[in-house]
Amino acid sequence: MEFSSKLLERAVNEMSQLPGIGKRTALRLVLHLLRQPKEQTTALSQALQDMRNTIKFCESCHNISDFKLCEICANPNRNETIICVVEDVKDVMAIENTSSFKGLYHVLGGKISPMDGIGPHDLNIETLVNKVKQGVVKELIFALSSTMEGDTTNFYIYKQIQDYKVVTSTIARGISVGDELEYADEITLGRSIVNRIPFETSLKL
Amino acid sequence: MEFSSKLLERAVNEMSQLPGIGKRTALRLVLHLLRQPKEQTTALSQALQDMRNTIKFCESCHNISDFKLCEICANPNRNETIICVVEDVKDVMAIENTSSFKGLYHVLGGKISPMDGIGPHDLNIETLVNKVKQGVVKELIFALSSTMEGDTTNFYIYKQIQDYKVVTSTIARGISVGDELEYADEITLGRSIVNRIPFETSLKL
Repeated sequence: MEFSSKLLERAVNEMSQLPGIGKRTALRLVLHLLRQPKEQTTALSQALQDMRNTIKFCESCHNISDFKLCEICANPNRNETIICVVEDVKDVMAIENTSSFKGLYHVLGGKISPMDGIGPHDLNIETLVNKVKQGVVKELIFALSSTMEGDTTNFYIYKQIQDYKVVTSTIARGISVGDELEYADEITLGRSIVNRIPFETSLKL
Repeated sequence: MEFSSKLLERAVNEMSQLPGIGKRTALRLVLHLLRQPKEQTTALSQALQDMRNTIKFCESCHNISDFKLCEICANPNRNETIICVVEDVKDVMAIENTSSFKGLYHVLGGKISPMDGIGPHDLNIETLVNKVKQGVVKELIFALSSTMEGDTTNFYIYKQIQDYKVVTSTIARGISVGDELEYADEITLGRSIVNRIPFETSLKL
């Protein structure tokens, strides 16, 4: 792609570093900014820099936060004896949106994935194990992706904490609400029969 | 969407102002920046602001440029007697990529579109008409989108310059190279038969 301006080229190149944004999309976005008032570009640039330079991670759960402790960890109404273990900040937001969980979270920052060079020491596992050692936590809920890497990470953490008095559980796998049986993959369908729940329980959900 | 940080929320909101970027995509992009070194965010913000604040538009053709005259207008090897009229900067880049045109361009900055409140005076039409009046230009090639708005704009410009000695042409409409006839729409197919070209000519392309 030939650019008539070095400034335009630099902006497009930087924009296309973002995941899923190719050169053509980047050009479309940058030309859009050129047609809008200067204030919009200033606001965007400023917001990105402020966020990158001053954002903090909660010292307890590693969620994104503006303060030392995030709003969830600092909330005295949350149940500190149950911790939901998630990969990413996005997962905290997704679970919070369901309003079905009133415990605390622990953000690992990824999954153990030797293929990508990510080992247990690249993740926030040690702080989680320390929390369990302190004895306040009664249950850990593993809410990681249902992949090889997710299962490996669950098992690694389970091994680290199995000598302590803590219940471990994992979120239910099964047929999504609204899904048709014939399109479900056989592993999910098989597990949903093995792990069936009393009909009376399902009525209450 | 509930955010655990105001800084994150502001960055996501600003990012989602861009066309085709919703809140979820914006969040994904912003979290990606958080995982990358700070320098990447600084470089992106700086490139966008530098571009927005210091970019110029060529005084002659209104293309984006770092100087008063863009590289194309300033190039003495380009044929200044043929002007290709386009809607947008992207169209200049697209035609330049084909290396098939050695004249100059004129960027209108849009199409006449009463539905969107864009009239002839919102576009760079007056400067084009003035160029024609000066008598150097021998041919205008209309290379606008083949839509109602594009045709209206072509016709408006044609009316303004029809008293001057200038040939007007429009880019060929027809079946795209590689396309199968059965999938072509009937208007395009019909026009491609009416505007057929000698077979010998097609061999030379």
